[in-house]
Amino acid sequence: MQAARATSRLAFKAGALREGSRVLPSEVAVALSYNGSTHAVMMATPADLIDFARGFTLTEGIASLDEIERIEPVETPQGIDLQIWLTPAAAERQSRRRRSMAGPVGCGLCGLESLEEAMRHPHPVPPSNLSMTAAQIMAAMAELERHQPLHDETRAAHCAAFWTPEGIRLAREDVGRHNALDKLIGAVAPERDGAVILTCRTSIDMVQKACAAGFPILIAVSAPTTAAVDLAQAAGLTLVALARPDGFEIFSHPHRITPEDAAHVA
Amino acid sequence: MQAARATSRLAFKAGALREGSRVLPSEVAVALSYNGSTHAVMMATPADLIDFARGFTLTEGIASLDEIERIEPVETPQGIDLQIWLTPAAAERQSRRRRSMAGPVGCGLCGLESLEEAMRHPHPVPPSNLSMTAAQIMAAMAELERHQPLHDETRAAHCAAFWTPEGIRLAREDVGRHNALDKLIGAVAPERDGAVILTCRTSIDMVQKACAAGFPILIAVSAPTTAAVDLAQAAGLTLVALARPDGFEIFSHPHRITPEDAAHVA
Repeated sequence: MQAARATSRLAFKAGALREGSRVLPSEVAVALSYNGSTHAVMMATPADLIDFARGFTLTEGIASLDEIERIEPVETPQGIDLQIWLTPAAAERQSRRRRSMAGPVGCGLCGLESLEEAMRHPHPVPPSNLSMTAAQIMAAMAELERHQPLHDETRAAHCAAFWTPEGIRLAREDVGRHNALDKLIGAVAPERDGAVILTCRTSIDMVQKACAAGFPILIAVSAPTTAAVDLAQAAGLTLVALARPDGFEIFSHPHRITPEDAAHVA
Repeated sequence: MQAARATSRLAFKAGALREGSRVLPSEVAVALSYNGSTHAVMMATPADLIDFARGFTLTEGIASLDEIERIEPVETPQGIDLQIWLTPAAAERQSRRRRSMAGPVGCGLCGLESLEEAMRHPHPVPPSNLSMTAAQIMAAMAELERHQPLHDETRAAHCAAFWTPEGIRLAREDVGRHNALDKLIGAVAPERDGAVILTCRTSIDMVQKACAAGFPILIAVSAPTTAAVDLAQAAGLTLVALARPDGFEIFSHPHRITPEDAAHVA
């Protein structure tokens, strides 16, 4: 399947309707199945799907990388089934978890328990000596543009990139920002001593994923939500947002951003 | 709970780090519980939550509006539990559906069945005489800016608005684009003879929601995905995208966009 497709459309501009076409990002149903049972179906761009399966498995806390025995993408007319085969011990744990998720209904306390489950704090970011200068952040934002072929083609895809002091090492794209980050994590793991850069806003689930991958710094082009800032604060993650080639804002744990080329004005 | 919160941060600009604050959109865990059982937990902006409960119930196909007996938002330290009470018949149907969703695991066909379920076509758009001129579309896009108080405050919220020939009647905002559309649908339903305008990209789930609400025209600021165009085509929905105050593109069923003020150039 293609990651993008030319689609015919009418364009209205300067008083006239004209026929033509535009290249749009593809979005297909992708099932994630573990040892023969479907865990979730996501709409995603059909590219880098092995990375997606690895990253999703990690960030959802389903299994570690060495518990994944193999991943087979199966194409069907309705979409793609990512068949993920875990070791027997991991498969049994996942199956137990599924049964408890399906659990008793009608208890009246479900809402409260579900809220607690949703807001549980992730593991804190592991120790890391990674730091970035202001100049490195701004250079990375300028470099990010050169790693987005699907966005260049469609102007409608999100990107997640992995930065180390040598620059942007690799990037992954998807119509969905969560998928782009899962794909990046799947491509990079188990390495974690770098910064993740996102072209999107930072909601709490993006911070949860970055923490699950163990990245100490998250940098985003757009603004965070309040919940994302609170969680980054609690988990020890340095959250930089509104990052552009000419400036940025730091919302948590600023000690990893070194003032080398910046005067700190109170 | 507030829809936005001032948050302190450091801003780097023109070589200097300065302390200050920025207003960020709030994002809290919101559970949707039916007759005491939680169906889903979404991260959402805590505003217009009764609309959210109504719209989510409709677009997820859980119940019709007259099957909702009452909605009680219960605030907890972890988030908000939207306790939705359905009529006995609707509650029993929802409970049966939950049991079948939890269904047998490990059948090996789950992935294929789940893909078919995810890609099922919605009901086609009901008959409607609604049409828009090119001038009306562009005027609506200009008017949209005046209906986004949360975005004005934070620059980081999405908006869904309802348009009728008199102009934009109402709008709803959320950090999540799906939530913004569900809130709008909950506020507008059962009325459907208007266009829905979105500030975001159009993925297939936005088209599914618009079809579930019965709106004949969907207009979005950004681009659609291929799957969104295919579904709009199949469901009889007029999909307009890349809509700005000075132009737009039509991806499906252009007959509802009248050429009154446009010359059609082949």
